[in-house]
Amino acid sequence: MSDSKPIALDAMGGDHAPHEIVAGAVHAVRERGLPVVLVGSPRVLYEALADHDATREIPIVRAEEALAMDEGALASLRRPRSSIAIADHLVRRGDACAVVSAGSTAGIVATGRLRLKAQQGVLRPAIAVALPTLPHPTLLLDAGANAEVKPEMLVQFAHLGSAYAELAFDISKPRVGLLTIGSEPEKGTKLIKRAHELLHASAGIDFTGNVEGYDLLNGVADVIVTDGFTGNVALKTMEGAVRYAFQQLKETMSDTAAARLGAFLQRSRIRDLHRRLDAEAHGGAVLLGLNGTVVIAHGSSRAQGISAACQLAADLAAGGIVTRIGERIATTQRANKRR
Amino acid sequence: MSDSKPIALDAMGGDHAPHEIVAGAVHAVRERGLPVVLVGSPRVLYEALADHDATREIPIVRAEEALAMDEGALASLRRPRSSIAIADHLVRRGDACAVVSAGSTAGIVATGRLRLKAQQGVLRPAIAVALPTLPHPTLLLDAGANAEVKPEMLVQFAHLGSAYAELAFDISKPRVGLLTIGSEPEKGTKLIKRAHELLHASAGIDFTGNVEGYDLLNGVADVIVTDGFTGNVALKTMEGAVRYAFQQLKETMSDTAAARLGAFLQRSRIRDLHRRLDAEAHGGAVLLGLNGTVVIAHGSSRAQGISAACQLAADLAAGGIVTRIGERIATTQRANKRR
Repeated sequence: MSDSKPIALDAMGGDHAPHEIVAGAVHAVRERGLPVVLVGSPRVLYEALADHDATREIPIVRAEEALAMDEGALASLRRPRSSIAIADHLVRRGDACAVVSAGSTAGIVATGRLRLKAQQGVLRPAIAVALPTLPHPTLLLDAGANAEVKPEMLVQFAHLGSAYAELAFDISKPRVGLLTIGSEPEKGTKLIKRAHELLHASAGIDFTGNVEGYDLLNGVADVIVTDGFTGNVALKTMEGAVRYAFQQLKETMSDTAAARLGAFLQRSRIRDLHRRLDAEAHGGAVLLGLNGTVVIAHGSSRAQGISAACQLAADLAAGGIVTRIGERIATTQRANKRR
Repeated sequence: MSDSKPIALDAMGGDHAPHEIVAGAVHAVRERGLPVVLVGSPRVLYEALADHDATREIPIVRAEEALAMDEGALASLRRPRSSIAIADHLVRRGDACAVVSAGSTAGIVATGRLRLKAQQGVLRPAIAVALPTLPHPTLLLDAGANAEVKPEMLVQFAHLGSAYAELAFDISKPRVGLLTIGSEPEKGTKLIKRAHELLHASAGIDFTGNVEGYDLLNGVADVIVTDGFTGNVALKTMEGAVRYAFQQLKETMSDTAAARLGAFLQRSRIRDLHRRLDAEAHGGAVLLGLNGTVVIAHGSSRAQGISAACQLAADLAAGGIVTRIGERIATTQRANKRR
């Protein structure tokens, strides 16, 4: 599924940049056969590549600045030559097929909106996160790009997520749920009630109705839409709860000798499970609705997470996610005009 | 800490009503020494009490109707003689110290607002839930009573929660956090930004600033305030994530013989942990800000959960939670007038 154009990997963003980012690039190139260019400070990156004997395998594109992890949306205006801005520019110019960054989410979103621009007809790009349900992930969006939304945006998020689920998980008619606080019709906010009506009436969306917090991990929907405030709180709450459960489990398991033996006998499987539930494994969030594919890796990503994010970016780009979203939005707009 | 007045226990609300509710009442009376009256259908309740040889120990107050679990707020208007309405009435008349119900949350909230009324100066009663952090629980409110709020209500929620934390967990200056989606000042909604300013300026609140979804279970704040929409989604997301983690764990643990042996060696401790993290163990949510103490037990509560909810209700009533909240709100109003 690899595209002939390389992935533009922001080598300066993330808690473990640049070394783990570079190691992730080396993994993606050697183990996955994906073409990658690193964007960042040439001197630093050359040295990091040399540690892997990879200076001839992976090209570097110069960016003299970088957004710090604690810099927000405004920094993207102040720093037109940041590594994420240059990575976006490579996609815009047609020199790369997708962007991957583990930098500040707010910075990636703001820079993407500025440099790549929203696709025609898309009101607001949104962040889609793949939750670790089985047999395939559930997409939650928006996970934080838009704290305040209008009902029409939630309908668009349903289209963005459906296009992603069709492509990445091979689901022919993704079931879309609307995140709210109860099945009773009088529950929820005015926003939710209006969005429910609109989703119900939308062609091209298989709307299954309201879902609740419980439903994020039980697979009742393939795509769950919400505003970026609620989505971000829910996502971080889930991560915190899983972390808490495993930490409590670890303490429980090392309490007595019998428990320690028991723990020993299954340490590796619990570690595997924890890893699967962990944020890193799913390869990152995707910023959908821009004129270009942007994957946001977890800020704490190490090499494996970066490599998985590159794979996701390559798959989405090769599958034509931008074109698919464009067609969905155009179809909706034509249908709305006919009414 | 028991009050001389009994707890009015809604015997008709809950997935396992009336039998588990009656069993919970028997437990509360015999094991905890709490006075309880059961509110509901006399014939049904008499028979259920007879099964425990408890017809002489626990009085019954007649209520011929009950709200169904799937009935929402409007049912409380249609059914003035429901078991929850009669239980509220007993508190209002001074014949009971508190109400406990495992019935529909929407019904309990609507009936409480109608029958007990909000305390003077309280804009909106809110649901506080105790999350299973250590060494003491963290309170999250509002967990679902008010889907849409104003910034001033979030400040009041901070007062309601602080009064509860002082009383129930013996914390002298509860740290209050505001649930949002990032520490950067430009993050969050207009509501959150305004609430942040107000909380920062409020006397009597130890405001520690913004907190995120991760922070619900890590103890960085004693009281976390949010609107009822976000709070309800976060609470149900947390419950779903813990359930999911343990279900995955169970599957992981029975995969091979060695794993099964390991699981056997620590089954009881994992069960204990799961129970502690489970909703039932914490004894229920509390509806704060009414002229009376109302504890909302989990709808799926069995006898142990009902008994724990009775204990919580008795402790809050004996500690004068209503008076404490009244004093906090009155002090705030005097301070606001002086400005």
